[in-house]
Formats: sequence, C-alpha cells, structure tokens
Amino acid sequence: MIEPKILKGFRDSLPSQEMPRQNLISQIQEVFRSFGFVPIDTPALEYTEVLLGKGGGETDKQMFRFNDNGGRDVALRFDLTVPLARFVSANSETLSFPFKRYHIAKVWRGEKPQKGRYREFLQCDFDIIGADNAQSDFEILLLVDTCLRTIGIPSFKIRVSHRGLTSSYLSSLTENVNADEILRIIDKLPKVGEEKVRELLSECGLSADNVDKVLSYISIPSENFESTLKELSSMFGSDNEYIKRLTEIRDMAAGCGVLEDFVIDTSITRGLDYYTGIVWETFLSDLPAIGSVCSGGRYNNLTGLYSNKTLPGVGSSIGLDRLIAALEELKSPIVTSNRTSDVMVIAEDNPVWAEKTAMTLRKLGLKTECYLGNKSKGAQFAFAESNGIPFVVCSEENGAYSVKEIATRQMLNLTAKQLSEKVK
Amino acid sequence: MIEPKILKGFRDSLPSQEMPRQNLISQIQEVFRSFGFVPIDTPALEYTEVLLGKGGGETDKQMFRFNDNGGRDVALRFDLTVPLARFVSANSETLSFPFKRYHIAKVWRGEKPQKGRYREFLQCDFDIIGADNAQSDFEILLLVDTCLRTIGIPSFKIRVSHRGLTSSYLSSLTENVNADEILRIIDKLPKVGEEKVRELLSECGLSADNVDKVLSYISIPSENFESTLKELSSMFGSDNEYIKRLTEIRDMAAGCGVLEDFVIDTSITRGLDYYTGIVWETFLSDLPAIGSVCSGGRYNNLTGLYSNKTLPGVGSSIGLDRLIAALEELKSPIVTSNRTSDVMVIAEDNPVWAEKTAMTLRKLGLKTECYLGNKSKGAQFAFAESNGIPFVVCSEENGAYSVKEIATRQMLNLTAKQLSEKVK
Repeated sequence: MIEPKILKGFRDSLPSQEMPRQNLISQIQEVFRSFGFVPIDTPALEYTEVLLGKGGGETDKQMFRFNDNGGRDVALRFDLTVPLARFVSANSETLSFPFKRYHIAKVWRGEKPQKGRYREFLQCDFDIIGADNAQSDFEILLLVDTCLRTIGIPSFKIRVSHRGLTSSYLSSLTENVNADEILRIIDKLPKVGEEKVRELLSECGLSADNVDKVLSYISIPSENFESTLKELSSMFGSDNEYIKRLTEIRDMAAGCGVLEDFVIDTSITRGLDYYTGIVWETFLSDLPAIGSVCSGGRYNNLTGLYSNKTLPGVGSSIGLDRLIAALEELKSPIVTSNRTSDVMVIAEDNPVWAEKTAMTLRKLGLKTECYLGNKSKGAQFAFAESNGIPFVVCSEENGAYSVKEIATRQMLNLTAKQLSEKVK
Repeated sequence: MIEPKILKGFRDSLPSQEMPRQNLISQIQEVFRSFGFVPIDTPALEYTEVLLGKGGGETDKQMFRFNDNGGRDVALRFDLTVPLARFVSANSETLSFPFKRYHIAKVWRGEKPQKGRYREFLQCDFDIIGADNAQSDFEILLLVDTCLRTIGIPSFKIRVSHRGLTSSYLSSLTENVNADEILRIIDKLPKVGEEKVRELLSECGLSADNVDKVLSYISIPSENFESTLKELSSMFGSDNEYIKRLTEIRDMAAGCGVLEDFVIDTSITRGLDYYTGIVWETFLSDLPAIGSVCSGGRYNNLTGLYSNKTLPGVGSSIGLDRLIAALEELKSPIVTSNRTSDVMVIAEDNPVWAEKTAMTLRKLGLKTECYLGNKSKGAQFAFAESNGIPFVVCSEENGAYSVKEIATRQMLNLTAKQLSEKVK
C-alpha cells in the first residue's frame, strides 16, 4: 500500500475550502469582465532561461527547475508577471493595445513552508499594457476598489505613493546614494520598525541628518488624499509631473465618488526595482494584521527582456488567500456557507421518482441533489445537515411534496413552487 | 535579448481562446453545482510514487518527473483520477460519502505533440465515490446529458455498454482467453477497422468461430436503447444483474425524458482495466469525426492502492478541447463572440467624465471599458470594432450620450437607460 501523502508546502483543497475560493474568484472575475479586462493563460512550465530573465534574485533559488525528457532546462513559473512579459512579446502582433488582461493561475515557489506560505498558490494579476497615463493608473486602482467593495469588505484604504516623488526627494539629499536600496529599506518599515530602518539607512551611507530627512519624508501624515497631496505639492511644486499625475488620479477618484478609499502614504515604496510610477498597498481597516491584500504599481518597461519594443504598464495583484482569511474573520457569506445544494431528494426505493423530482426542482433554479447511499432515513437527514442542505424532499402526494426542514426538524407540505419560494 | 519562445507541446491562450474556454467552463460548472457536485483541488506536483501507483504503463514514461531541491522524487500529475484516489484516501475522515466532486484543472503529459494533442491540457472530471447503484450510474449519465443540452449541442448520443455483460459473453466462449486483452482490442475498432480487429483477436488465440462470435456480439444494432436492451435480455436473461442495472438506468432515463439521448452499444469497452461496470462514450451526431466528447464508467476500487477501504465509484471526463472545437463548427455564441465589452467610452481630454460615465453604465449592468490609448478617434472606433464592442460613447449633453453604433456607423443620441436597453 502506498501512503497517500502530499508534498511539504502543498495542500489539498477540500470542498469546504474550494467552494469559497471559487465563489470569490467568480465575483472578482465578474468585476474584471465588467471593466473590459480579458482572461489569458500561459503554460505552467517554461524554459528556465525565459523565466530567469535578468535573474539572480531570491526567486531563482526557489524555482522548481529540472531537465525534461528532451533534455530541455525547464521550470515551473514562480509568478505571472514574467510570463505576461513573455506572452505580450510573443503575441504583440495579435493583441490590441492598450491591452487589459487578467490571469488567475497557480504559481510555484520552493520557499521554506511556514504559516500562510505555501509552495503552490493561486496568483490573481490584472494589468494594463501599452499606456502610460493617469487614466490607466486610475482604472487599475478603481478595479482594486470595486473588487473590495463588491465582495463586501466594509472598510479599507488603498495607500498610494509615487516612486518618482520619493526618488526625487532622495536625489535632493545631495548625497551619492543608491535610491533603489533606500526604497527597499523603507519598504521594510512595517516589518522591522523605525529604529531598524534608521540603522539600515546609516549603514548604506546616509548622514544622520539625511536619515532624519528620509524618516520625516516617509512620515508625512496620510489621513486623507487631499491634505497629503497639498503638502507634497508645496514641497515639489504643483507643476511637478508626478504631482500632476497624482492630482489627475485624485480628480478621477473624486469624480467617481471613491476618493475616501484612497490615501497618499509616502512610506509605500514596494521593494521591487521594476516599479517606476505610482505604487500602492491595500489594508483592511478592521484587520490590519492580515497585511496588504492588494498591491501593485506602474512599471515602464515590461517587455524589454524579450523584445525591442518598450511597453509601459500598470498592474496589481490580489492576495486571494489573505482575502479569504479576511472574509472568514468578517463572517462573510461568500466563505461561510457550506451548502452543497438547496434541496436533497431521498429515493425511498423509488429512484425514478427521485430523479424526476430533482430534475423538476433544478428547472425551477434550485440546486438539487439526490441522496445516493443506502443509509437509514435518520442518517440521510444527518447527511443533509452536515452538507448545509436546508430541505429534504421525502415523498410526493397529490402534487405536493412532504419536505423536512432541517433547521426546525419540521415536516412541511409544499408544492414545487412553494418550496422554491421558501429556498429563495 | 531572450527569445520569448514556449516549450513544444505547450501553448498560450489568447483572450479570443480563453474567453470561450471560460464561458464553457462556467456553464458546465453551473450544471455540476445544480446537481450538488462540489469542487476540489489537489497539488499539481505530487510524489512520483503516489502518482505511479501500480504503474508500468505508457503514462509513466510520459510523466514530467524530477528531483526537487529537497531531493524528493516528484512529478506533475498526468490525470485527475490518481490524485482523486489519493485525495479521497487522505481525507476520508472529513468527506461525507457518497462524495460527489468535480475537478477542472491542468494535467501534463510528455506525449509526442501532434494535431490536437498537447503536453499541457485542461481535464474536467466528475465522479460519485462511495455508492454502487443504478441511481449513481444514472446521475453521472444525466450530468453528461445535461451539460451537453445546456451548452446547446443540438444532437448527440451517449453510447452505453456494460463491461460485466461483455466479460460474461467472453467467458461463455469456453476458450481460455484474456478478457481484458480482448476488451482492449474491441476498443480499437473505430480506429483500426473490423479486419484488423479480426486479425488481432486471432493473434490472441481465439478460434475463427469465436472471432465471428465476438464480432457479432459487438455488432448488435444500437439504434435505440430499448431494442438493444431487449436483445441482450433475451441473450442473458432478464434476471442477469447487469441486465437489471441497465433496465433500471433505462427506467430513470425514461422517467426524466432523456432516454432518446442514450443507446446501448456493445462495441464500447473503454480500454482501461479499472472499469468494471457500465462504460460510455459520447458522440455528436453532426460531428462524428470529433470523436467522443465525454467518456467514463464505473470502477469498483478507486482507493485500493492507498487505503484498506474499498470504495466504488462512477465518473466521467468531458473533453473540453473537443467540445470547443465542436462549438466552433456549430458557430455557437459561447465560442464565437469576441466581445470584450458592451460599451467603450472615449475620453476626449476629459478622463474624469469618461471614468464617471463608465461607472454609471457598469451600474446598469453593461460591461464598459474606457479607451486608454492616445490614438485618433478613427483608430479608437477601429479598436472597438476589432474587440467586438458594439457601442462607443463619445460625449454627453443634457443627460444624453452621443453614441457611435459600430455596426451601422451611425451616431445615436441615447440616455444611459436607452443605451442599456439597446445592448440587451
């Protein structure tokens, strides 16, 4: 006999986990589609060379990489951004730009498994490729906002910043410093705290005075978009191109009535080098400990590795696992219902009747299953209860069903139509 | 620069391919859910030992198998049946039986790539585990039937047979023959033709007389379920347990008004050894060349390899790629529409207005996108046309939009509500 074990860092998704996930995905997908975003798919396995790109980072060591039967050096994708760059380069003749796509698919990373970190997980990315303007920045932000509102998150803030502004500020410090490195250090602030950030900044060569300046820049209050924008405007001038971009975004958010969901937070930098414009992270007001549920930013050269064409883009990821955790804490019906069907029909030695009845109820829009085992009636009711099924149809007489309502343990006499109304 | 190439036998799915696929999947999923079937997921990567099982077959050589960074012998799953067996064994304490699950996910096989065969493809499986009775056989068949009817396949036949009957018949030939081998030879009939089947049957030791008998058995006419069942009843007796099973299935199909979609076809055997009860394949009447779009059968020991518990099951696969090919030939709207949105709004230097307008239209249920590039108005209309978008909102005055109807090239004056009605 073989032990039915699974690999460390991998997991089965039971129906009680997979149903909420699929519910959430289908709601988010509907939002994407309502904005004209289209789905794509790419292979799970690619040439290692293609996935590595410039490479050299942490992800390389974490790749599931091997030689296939034909001796090719291949690997499982570790994100959906590199495959997107490869995809857009390979299919640029066929796609129409600006290209708005979403991609919800598995990625694999051989990280050390720990709480909440898996070696296989679902990534959910959406991007606009081929446009660099405030409207595309705003549309991605509005998508984040609409997704969270649609799934019923009661209160959240999308914390936006502009890498251009932060970099300008850093260059104004007149020291010869590596701006990318400083951005990476700032990014660590919520994890390591202010003292450690001070230490790291000094270590990378900043004078004590400049360390203070950096810390005061990233501490500009972020209560509301408007006031932070005002402060930054007075620092950089309202003609500054990054200030202009943020102002345009503010105007669109206000026009669409969603400005209250956004703040400017100068401490947001996103560690990754490839971001060049606005960047953001999203926190739930009631559950800050869950961390950012939606992060992203603008990058100005997605396809440079694979093509001569330079294509700007802006995109975001939704952290599905974190959102599910949040929805569980918020007891959202998206994740709490374990109901497999609305109605169960039990056969009582008459499967033909049971199947016919189930068919009738399905045609009325009720999710209906038949009990297919051979247990006692009591066990059948217990089966219904443990699967969250509220009604069990037991028999039929004169066009009415004898129905057990699981919650009340009562027997009811209902026509198909009455039962359907009771379910809804 | 790195060439953006993909591996042989793998493919990108462009929006024009992925949208139809997702549409089809969501319709099929809705059918599954309406029957109380629930989704599960399992890891793409498993221990090779777990996937190999008894192994030794063709699939073993086709596995993408390697040692991971921890030195574990792992492989990508090549089907969803072996992972289901492992899943049910590992989670048997948590699941309630009869367990009805579906699983739509990628599998990988290093087969020689050829027309219509890929090394990565979507599998769509649905099974009932833990019941061996006519009603569960029928429910899987009814699911096949309902899926095909729901997606609008105009005419098809589900060709059912019973491995038990065929095996009984073969044992009655009183020669010492390997029934499984003969079943595998019969399975090849549509591919290799009758002459070749005769030859292969002789080669495996059947007398000329018995070769004739086998061929006449598998040639029993299959015009309609009723008449074939009658003929088989007279051969095996109506008390035969397999005849009884087929009779019960007939009764349920007749009761649900779907009997006309089924025939008994004694030449259907399904090559695989693990089938023990009814087996079936499904052919589209208008497109027989596409081959079987839905196959499956009953097996009596899914979990034997991983557990002491014997669990019977019945299940089926839907060939999504074949169905998509069929829907394309049938010009079904599920696959032919390339529409990314119902409406496109162009900004004309006023992105705030454009985003607000798009939001208003989305709230009326219209899929609405904004044009985000910086091309001329003519190019924007061309963009809408190439993305199948029927209406372009250009401006607004006194509560009415100036709307270009792409098909007629006319400018219309419409309120949001009128536009919404026009789209629907």
